[in-house]
Amino acid sequence: MKTINLAEKFEKFTDQWTPHVIAELNDQYIKLAKLKGEFVWHDHANEDELFVVLKGTLIMEFRDGIQEIGPGEILVVPKKVEHLPRTKNNEEVHLMLIEPKSIKHTGKVKHELTQEVAKWI
Amino acid sequence: MKTINLAEKFEKFTDQWTPHVIAELNDQYIKLAKLKGEFVWHDHANEDELFVVLKGTLIMEFRDGIQEIGPGEILVVPKKVEHLPRTKNNEEVHLMLIEPKSIKHTGKVKHELTQEVAKWI
Repeated sequence: MKTINLAEKFEKFTDQWTPHVIAELNDQYIKLAKLKGEFVWHDHANEDELFVVLKGTLIMEFRDGIQEIGPGEILVVPKKVEHLPRTKNNEEVHLMLIEPKSIKHTGKVKHELTQEVAKWI
Repeated sequence: MKTINLAEKFEKFTDQWTPHVIAELNDQYIKLAKLKGEFVWHDHANEDELFVVLKGTLIMEFRDGIQEIGPGEILVVPKKVEHLPRTKNNEEVHLMLIEPKSIKHTGKVKHELTQEVAKWI
């Protein structure tokens, strides 16, 4: 039970598209990530995913539309919904994610960015 | 799948110590609350609770210590851990909470502030 300062945690890593775990609750991880550019189309069969944008603007493309999420905004992506995250204006986005421990961040898509083991910071 | 602006949601209510639901994921609610003053000692038998402070400073008293949480900081209170939230300097605190749908915000303590039904905004 210790307060976690998000800015201090963001200083601990520089790699992009690699979520880092900072806490857990109710069988989920709370993760931080830095993003720039475009990810891959994917979905999660069983897991809803929460995106909390802390810096920059995240664009979430769906098969039927687009949402933008800036600082002070959140977006829930429900299970089974295909999505493609990318960043706006070539600016780095800082993000807090909350999602079940079981999730793979590229869904069933096998990709060079696929992360097999949770990285705690 | 629609972006939620937290400031706009905070404009929709003024009552304090009453969490308002803005989204759900993985059998949990994402809630916003405005706090001022002191709550009641309580714990949650089965639910971990996430506090994300957006404005003001929250003081979380535990039986064996105290944590302060300001904007840009988070705190997880694990199940079964007694806690007493209160605010600092008599300033209103704005908070995002994530917790299982099953939770009662006063735990097993019956209190005038106990909320029986989730209030969506």
